[in-house]
Amino acid sequence: MRYESDSFGRIEVPADRLWGAQTQRSLEHFRIGDERMPQAIIMALSEVKLCAALVNGELGLIDADKAAAIATAAEEVLADQHAQEFPLSVWQTGSGTQSNMNVNEVLANRATRLLAGGRRVHPNDDVNHGQSSNDVFPTAMHVAAALGLVRELLPALARLRAALAAKSAEFADIVKIGRTHLQDATPLTLGQEFSGYVAQLDLAERAIVATLPGLYELAIGGTAVGTGQNTHPQFGERVAAKLAGRLDLPFVCAGNKFAALAGHEPLVAAHGALKTLATALSKIANDLRWLASGPRCGLGELRLPENEPGSSIMPGKVNPTQCEALTMLCCQVFGNDVALTIGAASGAFELNVYKPLIARNFLHSLRLLADGMDSFERWCVRGIAAERTRIGELAAASLMLVTALVPHIGYDRAAAIARRAHREGISLKAAALAEGGIAAADLDRWLRPEAALG
Amino acid sequence: MRYESDSFGRIEVPADRLWGAQTQRSLEHFRIGDERMPQAIIMALSEVKLCAALVNGELGLIDADKAAAIATAAEEVLADQHAQEFPLSVWQTGSGTQSNMNVNEVLANRATRLLAGGRRVHPNDDVNHGQSSNDVFPTAMHVAAALGLVRELLPALARLRAALAAKSAEFADIVKIGRTHLQDATPLTLGQEFSGYVAQLDLAERAIVATLPGLYELAIGGTAVGTGQNTHPQFGERVAAKLAGRLDLPFVCAGNKFAALAGHEPLVAAHGALKTLATALSKIANDLRWLASGPRCGLGELRLPENEPGSSIMPGKVNPTQCEALTMLCCQVFGNDVALTIGAASGAFELNVYKPLIARNFLHSLRLLADGMDSFERWCVRGIAAERTRIGELAAASLMLVTALVPHIGYDRAAAIARRAHREGISLKAAALAEGGIAAADLDRWLRPEAALG
Amino acid sequence: MRYESDSFGRIEVPADRLWGAQTQRSLEHFRIGDERMPQAIIMALSEVKLCAALVNGELGLIDADKAAAIATAAEEVLADQHAQEFPLSVWQTGSGTQSNMNVNEVLANRATRLLAGGRRVHPNDDVNHGQSSNDVFPTAMHVAAALGLVRELLPALARLRAALAAKSAEFADIVKIGRTHLQDATPLTLGQEFSGYVAQLDLAERAIVATLPGLYELAIGGTAVGTGQNTHPQFGERVAAKLAGRLDLPFVCAGNKFAALAGHEPLVAAHGALKTLATALSKIANDLRWLASGPRCGLGELRLPENEPGSSIMPGKVNPTQCEALTMLCCQVFGNDVALTIGAASGAFELNVYKPLIARNFLHSLRLLADGMDSFERWCVRGIAAERTRIGELAAASLMLVTALVPHIGYDRAAAIARRAHREGISLKAAALAEGGIAAADLDRWLRPEAALG
Amino acid sequence: MRYESDSFGRIEVPADRLWGAQTQRSLEHFRIGDERMPQAIIMALSEVKLCAALVNGELGLIDADKAAAIATAAEEVLADQHAQEFPLSVWQTGSGTQSNMNVNEVLANRATRLLAGGRRVHPNDDVNHGQSSNDVFPTAMHVAAALGLVRELLPALARLRAALAAKSAEFADIVKIGRTHLQDATPLTLGQEFSGYVAQLDLAERAIVATLPGLYELAIGGTAVGTGQNTHPQFGERVAAKLAGRLDLPFVCAGNKFAALAGHEPLVAAHGALKTLATALSKIANDLRWLASGPRCGLGELRLPENEPGSSIMPGKVNPTQCEALTMLCCQVFGNDVALTIGAASGAFELNVYKPLIARNFLHSLRLLADGMDSFERWCVRGIAAERTRIGELAAASLMLVTALVPHIGYDRAAAIARRAHREGISLKAAALAEGGIAAADLDRWLRPEAALG
Repeated sequence: MRYESDSFGRIEVPADRLWGAQTQRSLEHFRIGDERMPQAIIMALSEVKLCAALVNGELGLIDADKAAAIATAAEEVLADQHAQEFPLSVWQTGSGTQSNMNVNEVLANRATRLLAGGRRVHPNDDVNHGQSSNDVFPTAMHVAAALGLVRELLPALARLRAALAAKSAEFADIVKIGRTHLQDATPLTLGQEFSGYVAQLDLAERAIVATLPGLYELAIGGTAVGTGQNTHPQFGERVAAKLAGRLDLPFVCAGNKFAALAGHEPLVAAHGALKTLATALSKIANDLRWLASGPRCGLGELRLPENEPGSSIMPGKVNPTQCEALTMLCCQVFGNDVALTIGAASGAFELNVYKPLIARNFLHSLRLLADGMDSFERWCVRGIAAERTRIGELAAASLMLVTALVPHIGYDRAAAIARRAHREGISLKAAALAEGGIAAADLDRWLRPEAALG
Repeated sequence: MRYESDSFGRIEVPADRLWGAQTQRSLEHFRIGDERMPQAIIMALSEVKLCAALVNGELGLIDADKAAAIATAAEEVLADQHAQEFPLSVWQTGSGTQSNMNVNEVLANRATRLLAGGRRVHPNDDVNHGQSSNDVFPTAMHVAAALGLVRELLPALARLRAALAAKSAEFADIVKIGRTHLQDATPLTLGQEFSGYVAQLDLAERAIVATLPGLYELAIGGTAVGTGQNTHPQFGERVAAKLAGRLDLPFVCAGNKFAALAGHEPLVAAHGALKTLATALSKIANDLRWLASGPRCGLGELRLPENEPGSSIMPGKVNPTQCEALTMLCCQVFGNDVALTIGAASGAFELNVYKPLIARNFLHSLRLLADGMDSFERWCVRGIAAERTRIGELAAASLMLVTALVPHIGYDRAAAIARRAHREGISLKAAALAEGGIAAADLDRWLRPEAALG
Repeated sequence: MRYESDSFGRIEVPADRLWGAQTQRSLEHFRIGDERMPQAIIMALSEVKLCAALVNGELGLIDADKAAAIATAAEEVLADQHAQEFPLSVWQTGSGTQSNMNVNEVLANRATRLLAGGRRVHPNDDVNHGQSSNDVFPTAMHVAAALGLVRELLPALARLRAALAAKSAEFADIVKIGRTHLQDATPLTLGQEFSGYVAQLDLAERAIVATLPGLYELAIGGTAVGTGQNTHPQFGERVAAKLAGRLDLPFVCAGNKFAALAGHEPLVAAHGALKTLATALSKIANDLRWLASGPRCGLGELRLPENEPGSSIMPGKVNPTQCEALTMLCCQVFGNDVALTIGAASGAFELNVYKPLIARNFLHSLRLLADGMDSFERWCVRGIAAERTRIGELAAASLMLVTALVPHIGYDRAAAIARRAHREGISLKAAALAEGGIAAADLDRWLRPEAALG
Repeated sequence: MRYESDSFGRIEVPADRLWGAQTQRSLEHFRIGDERMPQAIIMALSEVKLCAALVNGELGLIDADKAAAIATAAEEVLADQHAQEFPLSVWQTGSGTQSNMNVNEVLANRATRLLAGGRRVHPNDDVNHGQSSNDVFPTAMHVAAALGLVRELLPALARLRAALAAKSAEFADIVKIGRTHLQDATPLTLGQEFSGYVAQLDLAERAIVATLPGLYELAIGGTAVGTGQNTHPQFGERVAAKLAGRLDLPFVCAGNKFAALAGHEPLVAAHGALKTLATALSKIANDLRWLASGPRCGLGELRLPENEPGSSIMPGKVNPTQCEALTMLCCQVFGNDVALTIGAASGAFELNVYKPLIARNFLHSLRLLADGMDSFERWCVRGIAAERTRIGELAAASLMLVTALVPHIGYDRAAAIARRAHREGISLKAAALAEGGIAAADLDRWLRPEAALG
């Protein structure tokens, strides 16, 4: 053990760790669950610290060699060389100050070792120079969220969309029964049905993309309460520009820093869009497992890849497990949305102190959806096959082809035919002939499923 | 009573009502609560029916005089001349078919009376011509949602924003204590604090506006399952164009009708944006009632309008009732979001059958937020006054002015001064002088609240 | 118009209304949506006022003739003779003070008219004597909730349970395929399947009943902040006892009044139990509509009552509309739970000011569930029929009868048989014989669905 | 690497791991996030396997030495000797089959090594004998939930309650201002205020305890679909009895197994009670941080323990961080409740396939609440001090002592006094004397805060 100190005094810290007194205090005071502050936040904080050090150096606010040493230390963290240095629980102070100080302390101690001449890099005066947890932490939240969306979630969404679009093309010629209210309806092609899935994903993607501009606006430069006290007037803009350059995303400095510290509207809106995606995925996964239900006593129109034995007691059983994982994680996203929303609504005065909660839930949903879509695409969608025979039999049996008669004989007569066929268990054609007044040849022409595809 | 009939047979209907057999059946089968299908949906359905009749007439699909009679009947409904004709519960079939048929029946019966020559206008073959509940009802949902947002919610939001912006300007010169974690922080102006509220509303508004394009895409033309069976190929586009013209909003026909019937991503995304607004409003209303807490034992920085006696037992008590109504209804919006989301995630195959639920919750939130913002603006924000004396006393007492010393003496020495002042109950200046090493004149210069405003 | 006055001064009130100045102010200040304070709360408040007047009279705290007049006026309200006198929005002050004063004012004005000699009954000093909105309103919330549960919801639940139990008995001999993961599983009887629904309802009922004791504890006697200032020491207990006697429920005075005003744990717990019921109902309604899916292209094992035409475009279509209404309202209950919970978590110091929100959501859920179960029972469950032929065909086709072989030949060999039958599209027996090592007679004995019922 | 096989064939498995083919397949097919199946579920499954092996041995259904070897292997897992053997994601098959097989495989391979004579213990035929994932997994869910509640959560709740009760006693004589609607109200003692917190916890505890009986009912014995096929008629009861004996909780066999597999009402109800606790904790933590707000510009009635520096930029700042962690995790519990509820409502036919989601959210909430209460008790409540001077000053300044005048002069005159005092910024006594008609001596007697305590 060695001693570290802060304004509260000295405290013992493990000798082989780079963190300092405030990290150690938080470790001891917040033994709640086993979730750490998300790594994406640590990485985003490190990006911010790196850029801040460079800007402070350029503006002559800290020594150039200190700036360089901090930047080098941050690059090491970003290269994942100090993964064990960020042990804090996500359930800590609501400003994320303790994780900000954790990064400040680790970078300060590491930079001190990198720095020639025995000078000390101070976690507050140097690493955190011109910053406050109150602007740095929400900046990191936006950076982590935007990076995750652009680099992970949207690409995974595009892959899943492409796989579904390929199936839509593959199944373009398969005419099948439509189902509304779970009841037999007019026909469509299996390709059209899959085109609906593609379009649902497109709508969700558009909703997500529309929320990115809000995430590109960063709190940096606001410091403690939004006024920017103790920072250089150009600091926020310069850091945002540097982040934009490094990360290739159009980050800018938020126009109003008071809102950027005390509210989290952009993250609420963006998670609302993630939740929108989850509604689309739920629908798609449910459809697929229902269409593949069976193998002998279900709908049986699709065959999903068989990946593993499904039952510990029923031999030979195979289950739609990818659909199950996906629908479960969508439920989690719905729950996360509530947690995040309540937190975001609970700011007070100059700060919202539910930031770790909000970050955790946003990044949790993002990861679940991105991984979940990839797993679903790889182990389910890619291998879907159509049971053409079964599909054809069902399409031919349906009574809802009667709809094609409406333009010719009106709704009421058509209904009488359909109800008769249903009641007597006969074909539509037989029922129509029994009702009378339509020629058999007309019926043959009108009652083809292919004619109903619009 | 008189008799009406449908494909299920004859049924008694009140003689003085225009509705028909299917409306009557629904009335009897769904005695659940006392919420009717929202009037905004009835109105939007009537708009759709009016446009559909005109288009069907133009395309020669129904007789011109029938089309005109249906249009006239629809105009009467839109002029609120038949308010008592739409009695159905919102808790009915999940497609909204019964309310679609309610409108079809009322328009058909009314148009029949309007039509010369004793001919009958048929609810299905004429009024519903080329339509299905499955495309008409989600079309009405989008129309009602978009109209409500553009005509009611966004204007109310703009009014509230303007009132807060006016207060921000009025309070621009009032320096006050900042608060983070509810604890004293560095100062800002009351005008800056209110500018944060304005900015939070701007962020929410941007989120809402970004979801409008999704709502402008209409399901019309998809009919039963999305294929457009039994409708003219131009029907959907023509109806959308006519709606756009009548309602002055850029409605178009959705690119993929399968998604438009079976999913509700645009409404989920839009309600996610409404929920974002609710997080901002919660924060603002909470801040205001806290800043106005007292009158003698609270923060006491603001004075809210005194609208009514607050207590049945404590004479003279006045409460922040507008803040209370607003925060309560924001909770309702958060709950509505969950109901709507679960419903939207639960579509199956060619149809989502949670449409009335989704419509009800969207329109409920919209109405609560629009009315709530207007009430809050009119009876609270407009009359807010600043308690300048109290604000000044608190700003002067705060220890967090110590932050201004950091650039001069570093974080650690500044912390020692602040902690000493806190421990000994003395002023910052006294504590700094006791700690030594800083000239009194420097302290006087550095420790002014005005210098901390960035 | 006439004038009424309160501590804020004079105000015009409609001449034909009994309400007073505070009601009028609230009407003007809270034009938010169109939901009024739930009638069940008005009724419960009237019960409380009636009992309070009698107790105050007995204790000699108000004149006996005033007490009698107030009681008579309250009985008139309870007999629904003054329905138009309670016009206030549910979105009002968070303590419900305005509705408490509404009731106080109406009873005072009505009692004044009833009282001989021109004396005035005062809304605060007489009707509200020894009370505060802060104890009266949560008392009314508990009374309304308990009454609704005991008189409406639990009886409706019992009726639905009985109907499902009757079906379970009716279907006791029908062996059918089981389904897990939507995939074919080992068989059970249709009666067993329905017994699961009954048991789910029993579990939910037990959960609800377990929360009643919390609701029987009333805040009355706490007055403004829980200390009971300005009330007689026996007042709370006596009022609770009188309510218990009148309403035949074991109401008592809450042991700790501070918690009873500032928290709403009993209502959160009780709504959690209502939500539990909604999970059971969702499952049951979903199962039924799936089992009845078809009529030709679905599972087709059940036939639900055909209540009304299902489609405006597809003649002859009939849909499981009762299931749809029920599942929609269950979603609403889930959303209401979130709204209520956030409100209940947001108390401050001596009062929770989200009371109207909490009351509204509790009573909304209660009403939806009670009415929804009755509708579902009457128009769906009661008329369910089994499609025995279809059920028998599916049961015979299933591969999962292979499970019966496991005790004889082990999991691995059984799996090989099942997979072969699936792959080759042959029967289990054929596959088993092809795999070899089991006598045909043993297979015939082991592979009977009836043998798998446990 | 070595090979393992299952009914799908051979697969490579790390040579030093005990798991088998199905675990390996799941590892490869479910790379979603980094949350593993909760350890509490693995432990509960191991308890079940241990008891099942003993019962199967006693009933002669598996060899006695195999039973003993399985039991020994399970004891090793329970002693945490095989922690690295359970690597599966919680986002897997919705029945938890893969984690059941993971435990089956590890115990089988470990028991095989323990077993003399080279005989193999089979994961399905031996370890899983008479069981299915469908009964074993929900059994483990109930066991883990009940154990966690009884051993962790309820004791932590009792400790927090005791700490608050001690403070209530310590503060019994401190008269303070009450606050309703955040506005000054009639006085109470600080001890009374804390007694309300204790009572809120008592209400929540009662709600939790009331749900335990539902959790004590176990699905074991139902096997695949609830019929108990392939298990001994006494198996379920015997295993439940053995679990009850080992774990000292009154576990029994569920009366209806169909409901126990396909629904999760007891877990929904129990989590509803956990959520109830979270509403109480939110209220308490919010009150405490508000009462401790300041140190100079807030309410300042309490002093919370100062645990760590609060700001990276503001020296000397200390924040209510334990309150922040607690309120954040309560939001998470509210979100988890939604996720769990949607999952529980989504069962189909003979199985609910959202089991891992439900287990995860229940155990997550349980852990957060238990740890959170312990942290809050240890680092916050235990060290709370009252600021007696400040409290006394505020209590004396309040205008709401006017309430004490109501019994003497009526509400209206009292209101006039209070409003005059407020308007003119004078004391109540001065205002009362100015209004006239009351003797100064009476005022002195009536306006003492102590007289208002009930």
